[in-house]
Amino acid sequence: MTETSPTQLQPEMPPTRWGDPAHAGPLPDGVRDLVGMVFALGDTPAASDVTVPAPALAEQLVEALRGIVGADAVVLDDGVRRLRTRGKSTPDLLRQRAGDLGDAPDVVVRPGSHEEVQAVLDLAQEHRIAVVPFGGGTSVTGGLVSERDGFAGVVSLDLGRMRDLVALDPVSSTATLGPGLRGPEAEALLAERGLMLGHFPQSFEFATIGGFAATRSSGQSSAGYGRFDAMVVGLRAATPKGEVRLGGTSPSNASGPDLRELFLGSEGAFGVITEVTVRVRPLPEVKEYEGWQWPSFEAGAAAMRALAQGDLMPTVLRLSDENETAINLARPDAIGGDAAGGCLMIVGYEGTPAATAAKKAAVTAALAELGGTALGAEPGEAWAHGRFNAPYLRDSLLDVGVLVETLETVTFWSNRDRLYTNVKAALEGALGEGTMVLCHISHVYATGCSLYFTVASSGGEQPLERWLTAKRAVNDAIVASGASITHHHAVGTDHKAWLTPEIGQVGVDVLRAVKRELDPAGILNPGVLIP
Amino acid sequence: MTETSPTQLQPEMPPTRWGDPAHAGPLPDGVRDLVGMVFALGDTPAASDVTVPAPALAEQLVEALRGIVGADAVVLDDGVRRLRTRGKSTPDLLRQRAGDLGDAPDVVVRPGSHEEVQAVLDLAQEHRIAVVPFGGGTSVTGGLVSERDGFAGVVSLDLGRMRDLVALDPVSSTATLGPGLRGPEAEALLAERGLMLGHFPQSFEFATIGGFAATRSSGQSSAGYGRFDAMVVGLRAATPKGEVRLGGTSPSNASGPDLRELFLGSEGAFGVITEVTVRVRPLPEVKEYEGWQWPSFEAGAAAMRALAQGDLMPTVLRLSDENETAINLARPDAIGGDAAGGCLMIVGYEGTPAATAAKKAAVTAALAELGGTALGAEPGEAWAHGRFNAPYLRDSLLDVGVLVETLETVTFWSNRDRLYTNVKAALEGALGEGTMVLCHISHVYATGCSLYFTVASSGGEQPLERWLTAKRAVNDAIVASGASITHHHAVGTDHKAWLTPEIGQVGVDVLRAVKRELDPAGILNPGVLIP
Repeated sequence: MTETSPTQLQPEMPPTRWGDPAHAGPLPDGVRDLVGMVFALGDTPAASDVTVPAPALAEQLVEALRGIVGADAVVLDDGVRRLRTRGKSTPDLLRQRAGDLGDAPDVVVRPGSHEEVQAVLDLAQEHRIAVVPFGGGTSVTGGLVSERDGFAGVVSLDLGRMRDLVALDPVSSTATLGPGLRGPEAEALLAERGLMLGHFPQSFEFATIGGFAATRSSGQSSAGYGRFDAMVVGLRAATPKGEVRLGGTSPSNASGPDLRELFLGSEGAFGVITEVTVRVRPLPEVKEYEGWQWPSFEAGAAAMRALAQGDLMPTVLRLSDENETAINLARPDAIGGDAAGGCLMIVGYEGTPAATAAKKAAVTAALAELGGTALGAEPGEAWAHGRFNAPYLRDSLLDVGVLVETLETVTFWSNRDRLYTNVKAALEGALGEGTMVLCHISHVYATGCSLYFTVASSGGEQPLERWLTAKRAVNDAIVASGASITHHHAVGTDHKAWLTPEIGQVGVDVLRAVKRELDPAGILNPGVLIP
Repeated sequence: MTETSPTQLQPEMPPTRWGDPAHAGPLPDGVRDLVGMVFALGDTPAASDVTVPAPALAEQLVEALRGIVGADAVVLDDGVRRLRTRGKSTPDLLRQRAGDLGDAPDVVVRPGSHEEVQAVLDLAQEHRIAVVPFGGGTSVTGGLVSERDGFAGVVSLDLGRMRDLVALDPVSSTATLGPGLRGPEAEALLAERGLMLGHFPQSFEFATIGGFAATRSSGQSSAGYGRFDAMVVGLRAATPKGEVRLGGTSPSNASGPDLRELFLGSEGAFGVITEVTVRVRPLPEVKEYEGWQWPSFEAGAAAMRALAQGDLMPTVLRLSDENETAINLARPDAIGGDAAGGCLMIVGYEGTPAATAAKKAAVTAALAELGGTALGAEPGEAWAHGRFNAPYLRDSLLDVGVLVETLETVTFWSNRDRLYTNVKAALEGALGEGTMVLCHISHVYATGCSLYFTVASSGGEQPLERWLTAKRAVNDAIVASGASITHHHAVGTDHKAWLTPEIGQVGVDVLRAVKRELDPAGILNPGVLIP
């Protein structure tokens, strides 16, 4: 294990905001002007004085946890428990800002090994302690909110000490990574060896390898490198029934159902992922990003579809709709500045010079023939530069009373326009006049694509209630449109009620059966995922 | 549903041999000479007079089945029941040749719709009748051998009437296919619309869509088009607990565990697959296959690895080892003729002229740089012409007393040579002097590859026992080598005992829990898959 003291936390996000405080700032002038035109800007709400509930776990159980992981790795401190309370959805931030810490864990436990995780689960099973695995704390779907009723207490199982490059097989191009490695740490460990994972979700700076696996994350280079679940070759997990190791023999096989796919997306409800083996790649020698302009969202989407169905995928492929293009959301540093008009597509190429040049030539020819206008490197570089900045902007907008949130879904190509129309209508209907709905496509398959929405509206007197009402309406609209309730944000508690229509009652019964088998006492992230 | 009479069977394979009798023939002279050098040729064993056990299912249950599917679709005929007995492994053929029909089903039931399948399962659950789904009957791992103890009888659930193109979404490039469609039928239905599935396993001529899904089949164009499970977008199944529909919302999502991956590879033990939705592609305008020569298996495998890890995959990629190259097994029509020496690689390109030319240029440059020698189109065309012929050859060899069987496994690249060496040693050790072991790599991943072995040895006095002993030895060797017990032949009954080390006891417990949930009476293909 990496040699860090059990009490030494990595740099943390503030409880009420996204990301690294050093990167945050006041609302840029361009955005302030834009926002001022649309919304009545309010004052920044005062940060509430907040109180963390006292730990409810019995002292002898705290002592037993100390016996497993060491006294230093059992943290009762209020500030740390506040940092382990919920995730980073807009409702989570609003609740933190309002001083609501009712979901704070009783104790933060920081195991240093698979064996320590297993021992914590054994103890938790015996004494009915709820265990919430905690990686980067970046959930935006209520994935870190445990039920409390009937439990002796709630442990936040912080995997931040398990940050090793456990194994590397350069011949097979696989690496085994600790679950607590954040995105940049994992990439840095691999980069020292000339390798790359290539998973860059918006949450990259803070989210972890274990979390990527447990939630089926998808990143901004998914066109070239695939979803995170597609990168996973194997995994190890601790469950109340014992250790599970899957994928150790081979990339793929016909040895029955693929049980890796049960743990991917299991959101801590079936076990705690303690190692993830992924496919790695050589670091790209070349990275080129460029912009293309399309006359409409429809035309740009059709071009994406043609590339995907022709197996001609660049590394990055993203298309903003007219609204998103108009306010430059794909380029957070330039929001409010001049936009190109139409719909902006970002196309990125990474790899060897020869492969990149060949792919770029073929994609360029295809996009030109389909009616796109090449905008050159500048919009692409601007996107690449600002790609992780959007969540910081949300905080600045919340500061001035503007409600901002994102949500996403995925469907088949033939259903894309219907889904787009229905989601926009649901948001505008629920939030009323002055609501801005922006959308982009950022993940593309041969048979379909994701739709990622950003919505901004005035917060009003009760921003939390306003948003929860809108979120219910949009979830209903997604289900009614025949789409998936989530493309890469996972189910958590926020989407749970909409899972049943998607996988059917028999599907839910199967999840419950697996849960009963692996976690008969129901201690693992109770209340998450399974309706 | 396709308008065929319930009693009208499609062309059938003979019970004791592979394939279409019109395509079978005596041993080619070249092979006879080669075989004569190695083995003492025996006489063709006389076909036994065989007796099919009388149907054991009570008449009122037969009548109830008639009430569900119609009288014509409930078949008690001895000849048909013999055709539905076991699959096409060498042990299966030897048992058929020896007149052992102890595993014959009591009745063949031919449902015409999902609803009829569901009603049969409901009846079977109530009366504890074992139900063995039957598609093409091409299993080579004992996937059609039901347990009998404790059951009122065994139904062979023949899906041969469910052969529709149920739905086509040309925008999303998906097709929904009936489970009973054989490979060529499915391709013909799609070809009428300019489309293709692109799944060409050795069993292509007889195996079915439902079987491909239930066993995680992989075909000869997997380098370009992927494994069958990777082509599947959605599926519908009937289970004793009711209907399951999965994948209907989207290509991929983060809505929890991917339950499609539980039904793929479930081998009839969790439910009966009644519809499969797959990605389809435009029919290729160009098909080019060519040969490459490598100085060693090692060098050829390294080249395959470089292509896969460089994401530079042709449509077909196959490499024979020195032994297989020497006897021309990749070109069954030319066995015993001149071989090129070294190791023969087949490389195929399919697609549009532009895409094919670009891919071929890049692959050709890479292979030349890695030390390959281009042999031109002739070996590639010969492979393409004979690609489905090998199983016919097996029958001709069995006729002259030569034991021939195939087996396959998969592992990571760094473990390939160890696995290859250990499997060869196990086969040669178990079967003794004069045993020929041939191998090829036909399925390649970025992180690993399959190994497909063909073994020939004299049958001796007791060919069945000889082979079963060798098979146990090689299964042990595969597990000891850390590889998967099967890459694409599935588990069936033959590999079941070797599944536990691969997925672990907790993994087995999960399969059992899912089985209990979906099939509490245990009527679905009892004895298959789950240890």
